Amino acid sequence: MADAVTLLDYWPSPFGMRLRIALAEKGIKYEYKDEDLRNKSPLLLQMNPIHKKIPVLIHNSKPICESLIAVQYIDEVWNHKSPLLPSDPYQRSQARFWADFVDKKIYEIGRNLWTKNGEEKEAAKKGFIEALKLLEQELGDKSYFGGEKLGYVDVALIPFYTWFKGYETFGNINIEKECPKFIGWAKRCIKIESVSESIPDQDKVYQFIVEIRKKICIE
Amino acid sequence: MADAVTLLDYWPSPFGMRLRIALAEKGIKYEYKDEDLRNKSPLLLQMNPIHKKIPVLIHNSKPICESLIAVQYIDEVWNHKSPLLPSDPYQRSQARFWADFVDKKIYEIGRNLWTKNGEEKEAAKKGFIEALKLLEQELGDKSYFGGEKLGYVDVALIPFYTWFKGYETFGNINIEKECPKFIGWAKRCIKIESVSESIPDQDKVYQFIVEIRKKICIE
Repeated sequence: MADAVTLLDYWPSPFGMRLRIALAEKGIKYEYKDEDLRNKSPLLLQMNPIHKKIPVLIHNSKPICESLIAVQYIDEVWNHKSPLLPSDPYQRSQARFWADFVDKKIYEIGRNLWTKNGEEKEAAKKGFIEALKLLEQELGDKSYFGGEKLGYVDVALIPFYTWFKGYETFGNINIEKECPKFIGWAKRCIKIESVSESIPDQDKVYQFIVEIRKKICIE
Repeated sequence: MADAVTLLDYWPSPFGMRLRIALAEKGIKYEYKDEDLRNKSPLLLQMNPIHKKIPVLIHNSKPICESLIAVQYIDEVWNHKSPLLPSDPYQRSQARFWADFVDKKIYEIGRNLWTKNGEEKEAAKKGFIEALKLLEQELGDKSYFGGEKLGYVDVALIPFYTWFKGYETFGNINIEKECPKFIGWAKRCIKIESVSESIPDQDKVYQFIVEIRKKICIE
């Protein structure tokens, strides 16, 4: 069966990176389309009329929106290699719990680190380190959240590491000092080819954050 | 195998109602524990140390938190009857998309209907009706979101119907007039025994909202 797979994405998006990593893990070739979010393509508006957001996975002309849902879809459809979710229902529920935790805590608090000042920034610093420490606890002695191999939670979380230079510089925090085990995990992840070939480096995302800060006048 | 199933819940919670309905659909007996949210039990704090929220499903001493994750767990573990998620991966991704839509739109906008005033309330009214109309469109000509039978999206969404008298009274909206197809769907759902035996009636939830409004001084 010839699968037609397209990814509507925007290169600095940690949500889009999740799909790029999942597709790379499965060895799926796809067409990558980088969207201009100030001038969204007719295809994006047609494929995600509800939220009008990237990433959108288009598989044989049918759209799958929302990154964690799309990663689960990829895992279910291309189940011949690199399973991302555990096969045991309880372990699967726990993987879903921690991926949801990443969505609820890491993205928004991370954003506050480089967009807020004063008390709000201090709260973000505290909240961010607390969240990473909970993740370190969940990681325990495992190499990856998925165990010996990259799994669903790793795929959900590692994209945010590309934003860490920005978080550290504008949030005035030293994440490696506070959470060395977390950084050890991240460094293991980015050595994996499916990850390294799918995500930009921290300097490139940092430059992007610098530009955004200028545009929204928080320089 | 003797399954020990406990539900930590709070009776007006639409999120807790999801689990009650899913367990009833599967015919699972369980111990129901109603929490006092101003004085949470040691068991709740032990079972959900991260979010400290209800509902929590405890299955053979192991906790599953976050209502949509718990409903999926119930569907996966007790898969002998009443499947809630479709078996086709694409249909499953779409069911997950709409359940996520309910979490992102219905709960928060619904809350704004009875807690906000002025422009914020007007925005909530507009947003709420828009969200219901999108749901009506997704329902199409089907009896339920799950097709001929109650499915995952129905289980995620119908609990909010118990809050509609409060939404309508304090939000000054007539939902049936604006979205008759939605109300038709809701009335079909509450005729199903697994639903009717699992949720309180609108008057009881309305009285609860009246009390909360007094406590938070928006009377």
